[in-house]
Amino acid sequence: MRELLATYELVLRRGEDLRAARERARWIAYEQTVELPPGLSPPRIERELVARIEEPVLVGPGRARLKLSFSPRLVDSPSQLLNVLFGNVSMQSGIRLVDLEWPRALLGRLGGPGFGVDGLRLLCGVAQPRALSCVALKPVGLSGRQLARRAFVLATGGIDLLKDDHGIADQSMARFDDRVRRCQDAVDRANARGRNAVYLPHVTGAGERLAARLAAAKTAGCRAVLVSPLLAGLDAVSAARDAGLAVLAHPALSGALLGPRHGIAARLLWGDLFRAAGADGVIYPNAGGRFPIALSECLAVAEHLRRPLGRLRPAMPVIGGGVDLGRVPEWLRRYGCDLVVLIGGGLYREPDLGGAAARLREALEGA
Amino acid sequence: MRELLATYELVLRRGEDLRAARERARWIAYEQTVELPPGLSPPRIERELVARIEEPVLVGPGRARLKLSFSPRLVDSPSQLLNVLFGNVSMQSGIRLVDLEWPRALLGRLGGPGFGVDGLRLLCGVAQPRALSCVALKPVGLSGRQLARRAFVLATGGIDLLKDDHGIADQSMARFDDRVRRCQDAVDRANARGRNAVYLPHVTGAGERLAARLAAAKTAGCRAVLVSPLLAGLDAVSAARDAGLAVLAHPALSGALLGPRHGIAARLLWGDLFRAAGADGVIYPNAGGRFPIALSECLAVAEHLRRPLGRLRPAMPVIGGGVDLGRVPEWLRRYGCDLVVLIGGGLYREPDLGGAAARLREALEGA
Repeated sequence: MRELLATYELVLRRGEDLRAARERARWIAYEQTVELPPGLSPPRIERELVARIEEPVLVGPGRARLKLSFSPRLVDSPSQLLNVLFGNVSMQSGIRLVDLEWPRALLGRLGGPGFGVDGLRLLCGVAQPRALSCVALKPVGLSGRQLARRAFVLATGGIDLLKDDHGIADQSMARFDDRVRRCQDAVDRANARGRNAVYLPHVTGAGERLAARLAAAKTAGCRAVLVSPLLAGLDAVSAARDAGLAVLAHPALSGALLGPRHGIAARLLWGDLFRAAGADGVIYPNAGGRFPIALSECLAVAEHLRRPLGRLRPAMPVIGGGVDLGRVPEWLRRYGCDLVVLIGGGLYREPDLGGAAARLREALEGA
Repeated sequence: MRELLATYELVLRRGEDLRAARERARWIAYEQTVELPPGLSPPRIERELVARIEEPVLVGPGRARLKLSFSPRLVDSPSQLLNVLFGNVSMQSGIRLVDLEWPRALLGRLGGPGFGVDGLRLLCGVAQPRALSCVALKPVGLSGRQLARRAFVLATGGIDLLKDDHGIADQSMARFDDRVRRCQDAVDRANARGRNAVYLPHVTGAGERLAARLAAAKTAGCRAVLVSPLLAGLDAVSAARDAGLAVLAHPALSGALLGPRHGIAARLLWGDLFRAAGADGVIYPNAGGRFPIALSECLAVAEHLRRPLGRLRPAMPVIGGGVDLGRVPEWLRRYGCDLVVLIGGGLYREPDLGGAAARLREALEGA
């Protein structure tokens, strides 16, 4: 496989048949590459860079499957990959990316996770193959000092990964630099008493500001960060990885891409693209929580994050979005132990936050 | 108005009534701010930072309108604003942002366009109030030298704004630094013969890489850049503006947000949010072209880009996506002269590219 093979499912409009599907496949092939109608690009470019299309097939009433293969030469970064796969196509309707087959060379260039499943466990000092715990520091509105106090309690209770809530950025209530120093200090103090917690500040901004925040996080002693790829760009994940930091990716805004008729399948967006960009773990809503998502799709995301894919390290599924403390054993059975369990409200609703953290720790260690 | 008033339209599920709409409004109010269930945040934070909800109203069969007012203190940047308005909500279904009323102080902090309609015209040396022309340099696969040749022909023909195609980033066929120098040189040569064309490289990447590309563009003499806010993050628009560059925003990927039942209305995404982030012009598909969009929505985007909004400069609507040379007079009548007409295929299909450019120029000057 030398090209990126993308399979789209097309919702046929009334009266459209396979011939119409072929026309639309051809349209996508040009629109997503040269963005000129057929015949207006130099012949060499039409031959080498316009996506090749396979004969479409009907896959159900009013649905056709299109396969397009894209030259990896079109892609220089994860954001540009997203652009090639769905940039202008997003402004059509009834086109959904449902499968990707990757050329190894492209995967090699994108790079994938810098730490991966094993690296993330090592960072947390977890030798045995158990699931990790993660809690969000929240709510927005607390001061850096107050958030740091929560970080200390949670780290002391045995939580492995402490991340900023993704609603926390650089607001006046808890400025980035100050908050990150305080929270990392708090976690360092807990770790000095025998813990190995990792604090992940939510890193936002673009250009120099993003670079400065990544640098400030490193200076404060952070070993990992939280990035929201659909807000900051997929390339921001790679930038954090290239700065030597482990990365958890947050799914904010990505629901817009997950339409049942138009968009990108969750297992590809979260499972393949976020991982290829460099996420060591990808947060997504678990079935049975606050967001409508099928368990089968959640498990498919986990499978894509962890499956062999070129030389990319496997990444951790981080299930969140309303995980209940009581159901943790069930999720461990379903997902296995290469998993991060993210609990927010389920923990904060307990009167004794540290005690609740310890119970979560026990549930994971005992599994 | 001291808070950001956001109006959402909710698709009611079977059996849902106003009481259910109220419950969902309350859910959004907590989810998009403290991200904790009611009662789990300190009372001061619940009072000050959880969005306030107004009584929902039915607006049609199965539709309710929700009004939520958000504290501007939640927002420190355009990307974070998008997060507050639609980050986690994106992972629900049937929720569409349809109106925004802005507090002036928040607009002041976001800053908006650095150049705006008048500044963009000044950059192009256009004294009279006429529409500007824009052409994309394409296709991807041409070398920097070949793209520069096209830039020279088009600039000499009288095109005002020459932008990279958004499929062009830093691929091996035309590396960013080399391409930008060559294209800017070509445009400088055309300008030395009496033109005033502006070249806009497509700036991609995150963190240091984005910063380095913005700096390289400035060093090469560029006065403006192209940014794709949904790929690079809305904050990348602000970063380019803060570097002193004018910015055209490209709509790639944003179609995912424009669902008729779930997402953000185009006039708000392109008209308000891109502008508030700092876009001096926003490219979007025009009605009657390659993308399905109603003329009324296109005109509403233009209205939002140019309407009085705090102290923000008005921004240029840049209509593209398959504009035909022959219909330019019609669009000038519809949109007025504070407009950029972006033509790609319609120009490249002409055997004499420079001649076609000159005809476009005449059409705009004669209007």
